[in-house]
Formats: sequence, C-alpha cells, structure tokens
Amino acid sequence: MTTFDLVIQNGTLLTMDPENRVIENGSLCVSGDTISHLGDHPPQSHDALKTIDAKGGLILPGLINGHTHAAMSLFKGLADDLPLMEWLNHYIFPVEKNMDADFIYTGTQLACAEMILSGTTCFCDMYLFEDQVAHAAFQSGLRCMVGEVLYDFPSPNYGDLESGFAYTEWLIDKWKDNPLVSIAVEPHALFTCEPELLKRANQMALSHGTPLIIHFAETLAELEEVKKRYGRTPLEHLEELGLAGPHLIMDHAVHLSSSEIDRIAEHGIRVIHNPESNMKLGSGIAPVPQMIARGVTVGIGTDGSASNNNLDLFTEMDMAAKLHKVETMDPTVMDALTVLKMATIEGARALGLSHETGSLETGKKADIIIVDTNKPHLTPMYNPFSHLVYAARGQDVSHTIINGRLVMENRQLLTLDLEEIMARAMEKSLDVKKWVSNP
Amino acid sequence: MTTFDLVIQNGTLLTMDPENRVIENGSLCVSGDTISHLGDHPPQSHDALKTIDAKGGLILPGLINGHTHAAMSLFKGLADDLPLMEWLNHYIFPVEKNMDADFIYTGTQLACAEMILSGTTCFCDMYLFEDQVAHAAFQSGLRCMVGEVLYDFPSPNYGDLESGFAYTEWLIDKWKDNPLVSIAVEPHALFTCEPELLKRANQMALSHGTPLIIHFAETLAELEEVKKRYGRTPLEHLEELGLAGPHLIMDHAVHLSSSEIDRIAEHGIRVIHNPESNMKLGSGIAPVPQMIARGVTVGIGTDGSASNNNLDLFTEMDMAAKLHKVETMDPTVMDALTVLKMATIEGARALGLSHETGSLETGKKADIIIVDTNKPHLTPMYNPFSHLVYAARGQDVSHTIINGRLVMENRQLLTLDLEEIMARAMEKSLDVKKWVSNP
Repeated sequence: MTTFDLVIQNGTLLTMDPENRVIENGSLCVSGDTISHLGDHPPQSHDALKTIDAKGGLILPGLINGHTHAAMSLFKGLADDLPLMEWLNHYIFPVEKNMDADFIYTGTQLACAEMILSGTTCFCDMYLFEDQVAHAAFQSGLRCMVGEVLYDFPSPNYGDLESGFAYTEWLIDKWKDNPLVSIAVEPHALFTCEPELLKRANQMALSHGTPLIIHFAETLAELEEVKKRYGRTPLEHLEELGLAGPHLIMDHAVHLSSSEIDRIAEHGIRVIHNPESNMKLGSGIAPVPQMIARGVTVGIGTDGSASNNNLDLFTEMDMAAKLHKVETMDPTVMDALTVLKMATIEGARALGLSHETGSLETGKKADIIIVDTNKPHLTPMYNPFSHLVYAARGQDVSHTIINGRLVMENRQLLTLDLEEIMARAMEKSLDVKKWVSNP
Repeated sequence: MTTFDLVIQNGTLLTMDPENRVIENGSLCVSGDTISHLGDHPPQSHDALKTIDAKGGLILPGLINGHTHAAMSLFKGLADDLPLMEWLNHYIFPVEKNMDADFIYTGTQLACAEMILSGTTCFCDMYLFEDQVAHAAFQSGLRCMVGEVLYDFPSPNYGDLESGFAYTEWLIDKWKDNPLVSIAVEPHALFTCEPELLKRANQMALSHGTPLIIHFAETLAELEEVKKRYGRTPLEHLEELGLAGPHLIMDHAVHLSSSEIDRIAEHGIRVIHNPESNMKLGSGIAPVPQMIARGVTVGIGTDGSASNNNLDLFTEMDMAAKLHKVETMDPTVMDALTVLKMATIEGARALGLSHETGSLETGKKADIIIVDTNKPHLTPMYNPFSHLVYAARGQDVSHTIINGRLVMENRQLLTLDLEEIMARAMEKSLDVKKWVSNP
C-alpha cells in the first residue's frame, strides 16, 4: 500500500498543464516535495499522513509573483499620488539610504506573510541585502528567485560595485543547493547602469547559467535618457551590448515599438508585466496582448508595495485583464485563462522554473493552493477561470502548499509568527517616519 | 445619564465630513437610527446597550454603490471575454427573457450578502422586478434607491410600457414612507427609449421629486446609434428633450467632449462612474478627473456582476484611482482621498442622499463600517486613505451598521441566512444554464 505524505481531495483540479485539464472532484497526492499522483480519484489502495478536504473548492498551482521588491511592504502608503521625482527624492531615497539588513529581513517577512495568505508560492525579487530576502523567504517556506540590485552608485548593502559583484557571486555559491532559493544577476536599469556594468553582469549570468533580470523601458523618461546618453532605444542598447537573449528577463517592458516586440520574441527574452504599478505611477500600458500574440513568454508581478500597494496577485490578474480590454477597446483580449496562465505556468516559464512549478503535473514540485468558493461572491460558479480572475481575492485562498509543505491551513500561517512580524514592522515604520522627516 | 443604543470605540474615525476630520482613538455613539455623538471620547456619563471595540481599526461611513443590477450576481462568470453583441444575444437576453420575481429576489439577496460583507451600506439599482429588489434589500437591512427599467420593448415583469409607468407609480407609492428604500424613475438608455418615453419618464420624476436615472454615453456604438437616429450627440438629445437638469443621474458617461463636460456641470447633472465594467466590456475610459475638476458630482458603482464580476467597492476604488493615472500618465490625479469620497460623501450627493448618509456627522443616519487593519497587508499604516483605496479589500471589513442596525458583526451576517441563500442561488444557476443552452 502506498503512503502519501499529503492527499488533497474533494475539489476541482485546475492543472494548468499543456492540455489545460480540469478534473472535477479530483484528488492530488504528494510524496515528499513532489506531486506523485493526480486524477479523478486517489490510487485504490493508499494511506495518507495528512488529508485535506478542499470542500468543493478549486485546487490549482500556487501563483507566481514575477517581480517584487518584497521589503518595500514596509513603505506601502508612505507616499502616494505624487510625481515620480518627488516620491523618489523625498520618500524612497531617504529611507533606502538608512536601511540595514534587519530592516530588509523584517520587511520581507511581512511580504512573505502577505504572499502566502494570498496564494503566492513563488516570487522573484530585486532589492538590497538579498541574502536576508532569501533567508526570510526560505524560513517562510516560499520558493523564490532573488538577486542583489547592481547600479553605478554605492549601495547601503555592499558599498562599491566591485563588492556588489562579489556579493552576487557569494549569493550564487551560498544558495546553489537550496531547494527553494535561486539566485539571479540583477542590474537595476539601463539609465542607472553603465555599459561596463551591464556587460559584466551579463557575463556573470551566462557563466553561471542564471537569469539576467533588469527593469526595462518602464517610463518615457527612461527612453529619453537612454536616447540622450547612447543615441539608441533601450532595446537597441541591450542588443548592442550583447544582453539580448533567452537568459534575459525584462521587468515592465512598457514602451516598445511593434518591431521591438518582434525582436524580443526572436531573442527569446522573457517579460514580467506589472500592471498595477505601471498604472499607479502613470508609467504607461505595456503591449501585453501583442507580446503574447507574437509568442513572448509573459509573467505577471506586483512590483513593490510602495507602488501598488499590495501583493495580491488575484487583483493583479483582474487589473491586467481589464486594463488591456479597455486599452484596445476589445473585450475579447486577455481572457481569464490567458491571464491565469500568466500567474501560473507562463510565470514559471518566464522565470525559468517551469520544470518544477507553475502547473499541477506528476513529477513537479507540490506548489498548490486551494480557493474556498463557498462564499456569496463566488456563488454560483459557471467558470472557475473567470471566478479566479474577476471575482476571487487573495483572502479566498484557504490553503497554501509549497514544495510539499503545508504553509497555510484554513488561513492560519504555519511557518510565520504573524503577530510578532507585524509588531516588528510597526517598529520599523517609526524609523521610516524619522528618516523621511529628517532626510 | 444618556443611554446610547450603540457605541463604537477604539478606532480611527474617518468622518468624510466637510473638514475631512480624522479623529484618532475616536468614539461614535448611535441613538436609534442616528449618529448622536462623535469625538475623541464618549460623553462623560453614558451607558450603552451595545459596545463595539474597533480594535485600532478604521471607522468610516459605509460605502455607496451608485450603480448596480444586483440580481445579475446570478450571472457572474456565465460569459466573459466576448464581443458585446454575442454576450447579450447568446447569454444575457435569453436569460432575462425567462427571469421571474423569485429569480430576482434570490439574486438580489445574494448581492446584498456580498455587499454587506464588503462594506457597502447603500446601493442604487436598475433592473426588472424592482419591488423584489427593494423587498430583499429592506430585509437585509441595506439602504437602497431602486427603479424599474423602462424601455421600448415588452418587459418580462410588467409587459407593455404603459404598465411599466403604472408599476413605477405603484413602487413610488408603496415605498414612500420606508426609511431605507427610495424609488427613482429609470429609463434604460437613449438607444432603447423613444423620445416620448423619455419625456414622460422625465415628467414623472419631476412631479414626484425623484431622481431620473439613465445609462448614458457608455459605448461608441451608442453614440453612433443616437447620431443616426436623431442627428445629435447623446447630451444634445437629452438637452433637446428637456431631461438635462439636477434631477438627472447618468450612469457611465464615458464618451463626452470637453464642452459637454462643462454643460453637465452647468446642468447640475450627477454622474456614476463604473470603471471595472467599462474596462471589462472595452467600453472606454470616462473623463472623471476632468468632470471632478469642473465641479461635477461623481459617485462610483460596480455595475452588474455580469460585467465586473464582483460588487467589491474597495477594488473598484483601487481600479478607478489607477486607471485614470495611467490614462493621463499623471500619478497625481485621483488621489486616494478623492476616490474614497466618490464611494462615500460624493456618492451620497450623486444619489441625492447626502442629508442622511455618506459621512459620519451627528444627526446623520448611522451607516458605518469598521475596517480591521490588524493584518499584514494593512501593516504598517502611514495613511488610512491610501490603505483603504490601494491595499484594503472588502473582506477586511469586520462590522457593517446601517441605519443604526448592526447587520454584520465580526464578519457574521446578522440579517441573512447565507447558506440558504447560496443554496437557492445554486438552484437558480441550473435554470440559467438551461435557458442559455436552449434559447
């Protein structure tokens, strides 16, 4: 008789697999960190160390947040509705100047709590003190890809750029055998990184076989700045420096010409779309339907909580679906299934993690969420994909399982002490207020 | 010693009054249906029949959903991502043809449950069998303004138009002394109502002193149709027929010229903005920042759940704030306070109900919600307005009080049997599937 570590039953399985199989009244079995069986019933003779009753809800792959600055959860609501430069100069920069490792650790724990509570099982982070981010995420049980931000100016974490490259090498080595943590090389943006920095970061990513991740074509001001400095568009600049390739992940990719979309597809570059942040900062609307139509792999992310101001991928999906419909005046673009894919299997592909996560398939890691649909706003249910994108919210997730480990059960976090984290976050917010008022 | 029926304490009062007073660690006292005291502490000598501890959360006016088709909650997710005519002809019309009073009653109860659970205390409805809507809303404890939709074709409720006017007169008479229900006269739209219908509806509204409510300039197709039939823009047509005045409430108002915005302001016409529905149907983006700048009173609504697909005004606010920022490429427009006003005091003004609801002021009716901020996604809190618009969700509301009556306590509905309503909604959904497959 087979003994599974975990069996989930009595729910509709949305596999997000290549056939997009939907299995009503399905069962899913986990052995160790891996999905070992799924179908319309469990194997005939089996035992389970733990059984979860999905109570008629939806069982789907955990959501993947393709672009975050997790620790910025400590800044949410600090400053909104401001011109970009005022927001940066009077709020974000004075705070970032003062941050330390403990600040980042606390902010990331806060973000991890919010992510697990809203059904995210994997995130991709770019910020400072990323060893702390990896540490906090690993403790929480989240899967993550992280990278230390590299730029032309001194960092409050590593100091000069040379130390930044050394720090990144150290991260890659330190976390190389960790089952949950991957490291990427992450230069900040074309207007904050000199060509030499970019080329060296690119070489480092290629030599280690890790992704190279960069903020790209987020604002019109960035386009102007790159044009002024180099006489090229951002994509031309990347191509010229030899960075354009399948190892590259672009965050934002808002301002692109039609031919540039074609070239992004040809290069095999992957894109993370951040609709709420792009909207809130007034940056623009990324041509996502066009990118998907031309075969670009596009995931979805929240960006940091300072420009969102939440990490709920359900509302991010809702916003993405609706934004592109009104932008194109076409209600058929970005249908619910397409958008849910961006937050699951396409998000996994965008991060290069689709061998282990993003869909429910035997042999993949068990990154699974259960959505409780026994609520008035999810009753009746004609189409589960529609409900997940247009009606559900993060708070409808009842269970979160990552790498086979149950990290939230009936909305109770099992890996994090929520009251203690919130108390520390409140303390850190007093520091933030001080730093902002005495910059 | 004064005895209050209800005292709420230990929270931050966001009054939304003319001075936008924020009272930290405030107390609010209710006598009967009315707010009788509010300040930084209760009157020195008092007793309370019921005391609610807001536990450091936010105490604010209940939210006002300015435009709904409540019973369409039974259609949410039935059909999405389709061209408008396919959606109408293959799904909505076949279903509406078959609806009866019990269907509307069940659908409205479902919607009322969702609204109370997400902090809405008042809604304005346009649909069929509106006596059932008023009845279901009144039972739930919600405040509402409702009106039977009038149009050129026979109605599944009242039959011919003459009976529709009689039905509206009967509604006005039946509900005239009800403390929670108001009746409006509601012709559907300019392309579904002949001029004679519109003029007669207008006369009825004026003679009874009720609002006249109409879908207006929602799509480009509507503009073309009105132009084709009457050689005028929708606003010119309204003006020509004598409908433009301070008794008129326009739902949508998406496609307007700059001079038309000026005239809407001059006429004192009020507007309800429905960003999610306008986005999801690919209708367009209403010029809301421009309308507000010119003094137009603008509320916010979800529209029906078939084109949203939820009734959560918190995400509606979030979407509104972000949509107009990206539309104008200006992060300073539609700041959080402006948007929260649309869902509270400006929403009340738009419906002509600001004498009784929309703000926390002594003498006003006690329509109050409490938002529980002791959650990671609302921690820390630098600015309560920002959190309500950009981070909170309907499920963060812990208590809902309407007209002095506690209708939700610690997320438990006190006026509705949720399990029973959801069971009936599931039954109705089986009918819907039948009607759609055999139109």
